[in-house]
Amino acid sequence: MVKRVAIVGAGVSGLASIKCCLEEGLQPTCFERSDDLGGLWRFTEHVEEGRASLYKSVVSNSSKEMSCYSDFPFPEDYPNFVPNDLFLEYLKLYAKQFNLLKYIQFKTKICSVTKCPDFDVSGQWEVVTVHEGKQNSAIFDAVMVCTGFLTNPNLPISSFPGINTFKGQYFHSREYKHPDVFKDKRVLVVGMGNSGTDIAVEASHLAKKVPFLVFLSTTGGSWVISRVFDSGYPWDMVFMTRFQNAFRNFLPTPIVTWLIAKKMNSWFNHANYGLIPENKTQLREPVLNDELPGRIITGKVLIKPSIKEVKANSVIFNNTLKEEPIDIIVFATGYTFAFPFLDESVVKVEDGQASLYKYIFPAHLQKPTLAVIGLIKPLGSMIPTGETQARWVVQVLKGVSMLPPPSVMIKEVNERNKNKHSGYGLDYCKPLQSDYIPYIDELLTSINAKPNLLSMLLTDPRLVLTIFFGPCTPYQFRLTGTGKWEGAREAIMTQWDRTFKATKTRTVQESPSLFENLLKLFSFLVLLVAVFLIFL
Amino acid sequence: MVKRVAIVGAGVSGLASIKCCLEEGLQPTCFERSDDLGGLWRFTEHVEEGRASLYKSVVSNSSKEMSCYSDFPFPEDYPNFVPNDLFLEYLKLYAKQFNLLKYIQFKTKICSVTKCPDFDVSGQWEVVTVHEGKQNSAIFDAVMVCTGFLTNPNLPISSFPGINTFKGQYFHSREYKHPDVFKDKRVLVVGMGNSGTDIAVEASHLAKKVPFLVFLSTTGGSWVISRVFDSGYPWDMVFMTRFQNAFRNFLPTPIVTWLIAKKMNSWFNHANYGLIPENKTQLREPVLNDELPGRIITGKVLIKPSIKEVKANSVIFNNTLKEEPIDIIVFATGYTFAFPFLDESVVKVEDGQASLYKYIFPAHLQKPTLAVIGLIKPLGSMIPTGETQARWVVQVLKGVSMLPPPSVMIKEVNERNKNKHSGYGLDYCKPLQSDYIPYIDELLTSINAKPNLLSMLLTDPRLVLTIFFGPCTPYQFRLTGTGKWEGAREAIMTQWDRTFKATKTRTVQESPSLFENLLKLFSFLVLLVAVFLIFL
Repeated sequence: MVKRVAIVGAGVSGLASIKCCLEEGLQPTCFERSDDLGGLWRFTEHVEEGRASLYKSVVSNSSKEMSCYSDFPFPEDYPNFVPNDLFLEYLKLYAKQFNLLKYIQFKTKICSVTKCPDFDVSGQWEVVTVHEGKQNSAIFDAVMVCTGFLTNPNLPISSFPGINTFKGQYFHSREYKHPDVFKDKRVLVVGMGNSGTDIAVEASHLAKKVPFLVFLSTTGGSWVISRVFDSGYPWDMVFMTRFQNAFRNFLPTPIVTWLIAKKMNSWFNHANYGLIPENKTQLREPVLNDELPGRIITGKVLIKPSIKEVKANSVIFNNTLKEEPIDIIVFATGYTFAFPFLDESVVKVEDGQASLYKYIFPAHLQKPTLAVIGLIKPLGSMIPTGETQARWVVQVLKGVSMLPPPSVMIKEVNERNKNKHSGYGLDYCKPLQSDYIPYIDELLTSINAKPNLLSMLLTDPRLVLTIFFGPCTPYQFRLTGTGKWEGAREAIMTQWDRTFKATKTRTVQESPSLFENLLKLFSFLVLLVAVFLIFL
Repeated sequence: MVKRVAIVGAGVSGLASIKCCLEEGLQPTCFERSDDLGGLWRFTEHVEEGRASLYKSVVSNSSKEMSCYSDFPFPEDYPNFVPNDLFLEYLKLYAKQFNLLKYIQFKTKICSVTKCPDFDVSGQWEVVTVHEGKQNSAIFDAVMVCTGFLTNPNLPISSFPGINTFKGQYFHSREYKHPDVFKDKRVLVVGMGNSGTDIAVEASHLAKKVPFLVFLSTTGGSWVISRVFDSGYPWDMVFMTRFQNAFRNFLPTPIVTWLIAKKMNSWFNHANYGLIPENKTQLREPVLNDELPGRIITGKVLIKPSIKEVKANSVIFNNTLKEEPIDIIVFATGYTFAFPFLDESVVKVEDGQASLYKYIFPAHLQKPTLAVIGLIKPLGSMIPTGETQARWVVQVLKGVSMLPPPSVMIKEVNERNKNKHSGYGLDYCKPLQSDYIPYIDELLTSINAKPNLLSMLLTDPRLVLTIFFGPCTPYQFRLTGTGKWEGAREAIMTQWDRTFKATKTRTVQESPSLFENLLKLFSFLVLLVAVFLIFL
């Protein structure tokens, strides 16, 4: 029976994993390479090897109500999208609340995690660590790997002919910290994921005018959405509802694609702004940015297609022969991930995929005592995803929840890898992307914690309606079953209060106009007549 | 007969006035206090007395197609909303194209403009100027005052109790040039016009976190709209159409108010963001800002009501007793205007009003030989407004267009001043605000240059539809009559091409989806059936 669990990394998933272990009577030991918790959310002025690196201005892409731990809402006066320093605060509050700190060994690097000789029977792992130069080895019953996927920059230099002759400065977005570096420079950002877009927009406040300030080069384009969504509600609180999800999964893919394109173009027409995705049916993770179209329409950022050639002091793009003078190139070309402390026979990373069952368990191991937490990119928040993974993993480690036989798991993983481009609903084109609600529901089902809306409809219809039509906030994952939280219902019913608390900081006595009153009166009369007619 | 015309100021209206005079055979002499043209659009690092002062980042609020001179479109590769340096470029191109420069006397300040002794007969003015210390006097047949309304800061210091005890720094928005001044400071901006909002947003990139970065205090609130409007079209190209204008003026005010509120809240709900205007029926000039809601939802800008009290190092707002620590206060409290070189008996400024007939002519003068150009705030662009005013004024000066008798003019001005709060369409609450299209049409009618859409419907229906349903671009004012421009029709028909030219800088082979094709086919079949049924 599993008792001692090694947890690798004290980021958002590592913290959740410690808490889940404690709640289920396991003994966690978390090894954190750096000197503090928070993982990617801890900004440092210098890039640290083996740890994700933020730029100073990073703000969360999921709203606070959607991206909290499921039993620990953000403080109500936090802004709806949380800047990184406040986000780190929150993680520290969480660690304090649940007393997690004493289980973390800081400044401790994992050297290797290897199967014990009797692994087939015991499922145990030998974990070798190094702390202040001193090596240490210990046996654990299980290992939860929480190292994330943003540590190894992907810089396909060979895709940019002539880059070796470039006399300016170039670097991967991972190296980027402050916009000062762009002051009075001619800037090109390559790649328009979230980082690339953020960096281009930030640079455009400082960069040199030529006459356009900053070039943003993208091959595939992307849908760009704003945190400020329909009527100003946080985008994910509108987009990520069970109702919308059911609707999207019910309709045929071409119709969903068309509807999504219509929706995405309602803020701004992506074709007119040069951003239209190359293949609209193969929908990519949308980019979250509130400022990009405003920067384009004022001539501060200019969208360009892919690079044809880099010269000594300029770049030629694929649509004209014109050379654009450039001083700095930022390659926001994403990340690859790896597990340097694991043997390939345990987890093999190939084509950006780790072939894990449910994105968690190596499918071929004789014992399911190694789990990878947070190696997934849901179109939703990482925190509740990693947390729910950890909740399930702990049940598997305890033997309460059983995995299918390896052959079944391997088959399912292969199927998933094959079907990675079937539309918007369940799958994305990129290996790690997964749809949020169905994935979480699957995990919750395994631990008996998925709320049964149908049966709840009789006992608590208001809650059911809020759950089904409202944002799929993580509190929903704590309503019932294993890990139930008593505060979950209350948290759901007050989610909008906390949302408005942060922005409704000036109020005005409402005085509805005469017309509005008449409209209301009229609606009421129509309703009365309708009721009357029905009962006639 | 008027020949010699003195023009005061070489900003956007001054330049248009020179051109109009030249076209009609008058002899303009333009006196410009500073050493270059461009007026408010010429950014300088230091505030110059008697001239409007820009901050470095100012971008036009009207799009390039809506804010150009009516016979001189912006270069097609200019961004849709033009940064101030490019705007100045454009004004220089205009001056060069029409050879205006030689009529401007730079570094020449107007000391006084006084009626000649025989004014009742001659209508002449004595203009006293000073150039490099040397005074000069000359007689002119007419004077066009083009000094604008953004030179005298309005800083009602007595409205902020305790401001004298404040130990931090405070200044009027006019003094603001670069955001560096806010670095690591706790900032409060008072007033949310366009400047206040811009400054708060800019400060929020640099200011100190407390935990909110920048406070923006507003008593009345405001509708905030983005340059990036419906589907990303420039806001004014969607909003300022003859169709929409007719629609708004046709409907009763309460319904228009309600519709406008609905529209304004579709980007973000102004109540939830603390920005809701205090009195929705008394609609104010909307604020143009692309970033404000994004800064609010990420906690970078916090909206506050009016100030209750200023203390040594903090401010108390009117909704709580909490003291908020503040280092810098920026008063974006607007401007007043004055004509220091004119006697009060010529133009009297009272309560922010100059009581000018059509915002141009002092109503009581015996001879209409003094005109004020550009002393108006249309919900539209200044350039075509000032230009059309100048076109009319020149016709009045020439005696082609006649003014009504003083008594009629005085009555009309008084009526206008009284009715300054009757709704969205024709009037605004503030003295200088006026509705764009009806105002311009009125002026055009006086010079016989208003296009007659009804009669054009037979000869050029495509043009008429573009004019009526499309953006009311200034080229429409040059289609016919006095000052007709041969390129006007072409400019109207290509206005969207120039709009997209600046942003559609990356294109993708369009491949409409199967669903889209089916949708089109279906629509076509429905149409066929409809036609069949009609002719059956």
